Amino acid sequence: MRPNPPESPFQRRRTSAATAFSAHGLDSLLVTALSNIRYLTNFTGSNGALLLFREHAVLYTDPRYELQATEEADCPVKVARGPLWIAVRKDLNRKHLKRTGFEKGRITYEAYEALRGLDAGDPGLVPVGGIVEHLRMVKSEDEVGAIRRSVATASKAFHEAVKRIRPETTEKELAAELEYRMRRSGAEKPAFETIVASGRRTAFPHANPASGTIGRNRLVLIDMGASQNGYASDMTRMLFSGRPGAKLRRLYNSVLEAQLAAIAAVREGVTAGQVDRKARQVLGSYGLRDAFVHSTGHGLGLEIHEPPRIGRRDKTRLQAGMVITIEPGVYLEGFGGIRIEDTVLVTKTGCEVLTPTPKELILF
Amino acid sequence: MRPNPPESPFQRRRTSAATAFSAHGLDSLLVTALSNIRYLTNFTGSNGALLLFREHAVLYTDPRYELQATEEADCPVKVARGPLWIAVRKDLNRKHLKRTGFEKGRITYEAYEALRGLDAGDPGLVPVGGIVEHLRMVKSEDEVGAIRRSVATASKAFHEAVKRIRPETTEKELAAELEYRMRRSGAEKPAFETIVASGRRTAFPHANPASGTIGRNRLVLIDMGASQNGYASDMTRMLFSGRPGAKLRRLYNSVLEAQLAAIAAVREGVTAGQVDRKARQVLGSYGLRDAFVHSTGHGLGLEIHEPPRIGRRDKTRLQAGMVITIEPGVYLEGFGGIRIEDTVLVTKTGCEVLTPTPKELILF
Repeated sequence: MRPNPPESPFQRRRTSAATAFSAHGLDSLLVTALSNIRYLTNFTGSNGALLLFREHAVLYTDPRYELQATEEADCPVKVARGPLWIAVRKDLNRKHLKRTGFEKGRITYEAYEALRGLDAGDPGLVPVGGIVEHLRMVKSEDEVGAIRRSVATASKAFHEAVKRIRPETTEKELAAELEYRMRRSGAEKPAFETIVASGRRTAFPHANPASGTIGRNRLVLIDMGASQNGYASDMTRMLFSGRPGAKLRRLYNSVLEAQLAAIAAVREGVTAGQVDRKARQVLGSYGLRDAFVHSTGHGLGLEIHEPPRIGRRDKTRLQAGMVITIEPGVYLEGFGGIRIEDTVLVTKTGCEVLTPTPKELILF
Repeated sequence: MRPNPPESPFQRRRTSAATAFSAHGLDSLLVTALSNIRYLTNFTGSNGALLLFREHAVLYTDPRYELQATEEADCPVKVARGPLWIAVRKDLNRKHLKRTGFEKGRITYEAYEALRGLDAGDPGLVPVGGIVEHLRMVKSEDEVGAIRRSVATASKAFHEAVKRIRPETTEKELAAELEYRMRRSGAEKPAFETIVASGRRTAFPHANPASGTIGRNRLVLIDMGASQNGYASDMTRMLFSGRPGAKLRRLYNSVLEAQLAAIAAVREGVTAGQVDRKARQVLGSYGLRDAFVHSTGHGLGLEIHEPPRIGRRDKTRLQAGMVITIEPGVYLEGFGGIRIEDTVLVTKTGCEVLTPTPKELILF
């Protein structure tokens, strides 16, 4: 007798997903988030849907991805010539499924309408959220390895590009340099639009790089990450073109203290909200509570933002193997903003800060 | 008396949008596509919703974008501390609106659920599609200018990077080089993930760059575009590392003939489907109909894919000022794929090919 082929990690993940959707009383799950499809099948194309049953799975895509899907995925592939939703609906109707979950946060209302159909029988669609994302929170060793490589790429690019920064450099040039160096080191793309902001624009937490030069006596915020073999990294560092004054140094140290306090709070068993509270307490003690306008961090992996959210209201208990960012920041209109961010691996006893880049304010 | 301030282009667009949604019997329109929000307000942040009334508009965003939204947009800004949908729903309920359109293809089912509310009164939500996208099809002079700059940036980067290509170059290095040069020439990012595929992988219409070298006697497909001041460009060119054989030259010439025939068919008044048919006829005459697995092109502007779709079933009549791609291709498993693509401006009497890059197969 031939032995069964060893299970692929994708097959194992599909089995876990089936256990999870069965616990929701579903007999199948339609997966529409591309990151979830990649996680469950290894398919990396930009158009797909995965119909997951208890014992098997079918991947739908369009003709552009026929060859790629067949090569990448270890499950049957169906190629739809029209919209995927029509093909999926036909199969749902044919199989007389009673309760098929769909990823409510990962599908447009229009696709839902097409799936449901207007005249055909009700295919028993049940809106669900976060089933696969929940499985993705705790990373496998391979995934942690991929994130480590992504982190290393981003930090290497940062180190190389920052050596060449001058007050005459423009924000756009610096962003271009950072992204180029990430690609040269193995990233397929930036994990998100690289943020390079200088002067008062640092007070925009998500500023786009501008074409003007940085100039002298300016604060510079760099928020960057690589996407490498699909896995994200994320870091923020601050620079100053001159000698920083007392106010800036005070603010910088407050944010750094908050970041270190939050990192010190990370370990298996504490809640995301508790970590967030640590950062908020420190900033509050300096009268900066209202200047901290976002949450302390977020999970990351195949996506740059994944659960858990390290925010006030998130009760998720951290588990060893989760990878999260810790990134408190303060933003003062007319003055500027400061944020310090690392990518961090949760462990049983604490955490490992994956980002190797030093955290002092860099002067140039 | 002080004269009224001149209307901004954004105000004018909002007035056109109001005329359009009124014709659908709506008293307001909730705009959730970020590209539509940018088109109507100039806001470029990554989280927003725009509630458009007949005479005014309100932009919702989160605290990260408060300063930026106030600077960029010429309409009132509301900052929501929780999810935007809850804030929007409260306002919808308070104003007792009867019929508010929402962009069904641009909102998740989950956001729709949050907007609708579960216990509160029905806010009269009506799914609609393409209202703002329809206005965006015909570009203003300023928009065409922005697309011209984006096209010029992509072609310049292509020209510079291709000069340095060798059989020893990897697909990833070439993609990195192309993107870096686009950024240095003013792009804020690639308009989409740059495709560099070589050898048999050219048969994957949407291949990701690989880390291996190109090698000798290999076909190379480059599909690239810039996003510059928000506006996209899109071009595809083919290279070969050696002396191409007769089969490849024949295939190349068939695709080129199809592309030129489709371009020759473009002018105000013809339908998108007619243009697509031209390309398909030429390829059919060479027995390549089944190898052409996608549509002939698509509109582009603030997004890389906009209506009209230059496909079989699209009956949109082309109008002067539309900007579209013309990109027939053939894909033969085990051999390779060939695609040739330009960005083209529709005019009253024909079209202007904006892409300046020559179209012959480039040998290296």
